[in-house]
Amino acid sequence: MKSYSKELYFNIPERMGFVNITSQVEEVLIESGIQEGLCLVNAMHITASVFINDDESGLHRDYKRWLEKLAPHAPIDQYDHNLTGEDNGDAHHKRQIMGREVVVAVTNGRLHFGTWEQIFYGEFDGRRNKRVLVKIIGDLIGSTCNFSIFSFRCF
Amino acid sequence: MKSYSKELYFNIPERMGFVNITSQVEEVLIESGIQEGLCLVNAMHITASVFINDDESGLHRDYKRWLEKLAPHAPIDQYDHNLTGEDNGDAHHKRQIMGREVVVAVTNGRLHFGTWEQIFYGEFDGRRNKRVLVKIIGDLIGSTCNFSIFSFRCF
Amino acid sequence: MKSYSKELYFNIPERMGFVNITSQVEEVLIESGIQEGLCLVNAMHITASVFINDDESGLHRDYKRWLEKLAPHAPIDQYDHNLTGEDNGDAHHKRQIMGREVVVAVTNGRLHFGTWEQIFYGEFDGRRNKRVLVKIIGDLIGSTCNFSIFSFRCF
Repeated sequence: MKSYSKELYFNIPERMGFVNITSQVEEVLIESGIQEGLCLVNAMHITASVFINDDESGLHRDYKRWLEKLAPHAPIDQYDHNLTGEDNGDAHHKRQIMGREVVVAVTNGRLHFGTWEQIFYGEFDGRRNKRVLVKIIGDLIGSTCNFSIFSFRCF
Repeated sequence: MKSYSKELYFNIPERMGFVNITSQVEEVLIESGIQEGLCLVNAMHITASVFINDDESGLHRDYKRWLEKLAPHAPIDQYDHNLTGEDNGDAHHKRQIMGREVVVAVTNGRLHFGTWEQIFYGEFDGRRNKRVLVKIIGDLIGSTCNFSIFSFRCF
Repeated sequence: MKSYSKELYFNIPERMGFVNITSQVEEVLIESGIQEGLCLVNAMHITASVFINDDESGLHRDYKRWLEKLAPHAPIDQYDHNLTGEDNGDAHHKRQIMGREVVVAVTNGRLHFGTWEQIFYGEFDGRRNKRVLVKIIGDLIGSTCNFSIFSFRCF
């Protein structure tokens, strides 16, 4: 088994924002040389998410509006967490909706994705340095795949 | 390390529906021969989920009502995403609540589950062909387990 | 590849509660001897969560209030699931918001965490015995890491 880790760095200029990191994760996968295995991508901060969805700007506006409705930023005194002097209570809630991490299959050296799957970094308390971890474990040897109208399998 | 992948195919007749896929995932695990490792099960579409919960029809009715309240389908013009010509803006939101994937431990050739855990495919934009990926990585050799009133461990 | 599993036991005295289990997971990792790999931590019950966030009591009060608003416990007849004789319909919903599991990278024998990441068991239907599974897969040999201002990598 081989393993490979790399941390990606972000500093998002707004409080809330989404960045497509699919190509960065693909580059890490190529660096690793791993052909078969699992790829974990997770936010290393608790006010941020990594999630998989569509790269469509209308949807991202919808997500921002929806998350703001489910866990509004203001008034900041609605969160006991903000009694610590922080103003990011909402961000800890938004991140639970969108999730901390994704685990993606690696098959024949590629992210084993459906047509529209793209990986995003989701920031909910930006304007500061943040990190995402990519950890890949697996084998350097590829697999053999069979395709029929009933199934697609790799051994 | 051995790895095994298989895609499962679905076409749900309603817009929203839940299908228990536990036995299908167990079959893939048996085909793989893997005894110890991790099993990833993920929707390959961004308007669908894979999640673990109870196989109880009342709960599934509750989930549908709740998801419809958190992210209503209509009116469709409440979602900027639907300006693309789609009408599935709600489905992209429902999927974030229910999640994209589950990772299940494999111990001695079985899904290492609690009593009531069952794996579901959750569809939020049905009436079309969809896929779920099962990817298992691990070893063909089983482990030795110890049980006491204080702990259950496998080496 | 080596694998190691251990079940942790809980009995939370309230209906809803959060317990920091980071040190327990770290102990399991040390017992395993695994240096490089992935660590899955999941609730084995469908009315409980494992999630990663901040160990801050104000935030935990916020989460309880927020989850109670998104999926109230009472009146219990608002959930068809409670027609089975249970009163935990709300708990099955709260668990979907907070998630079933986390997957954590293991690098050089440690949980590869950001500064504030802590693992919590989240109970939504307590006052009974519950279990959490820790499953670690990986290698007994550590990796070599490089640090620059542009990246942090381990091979």
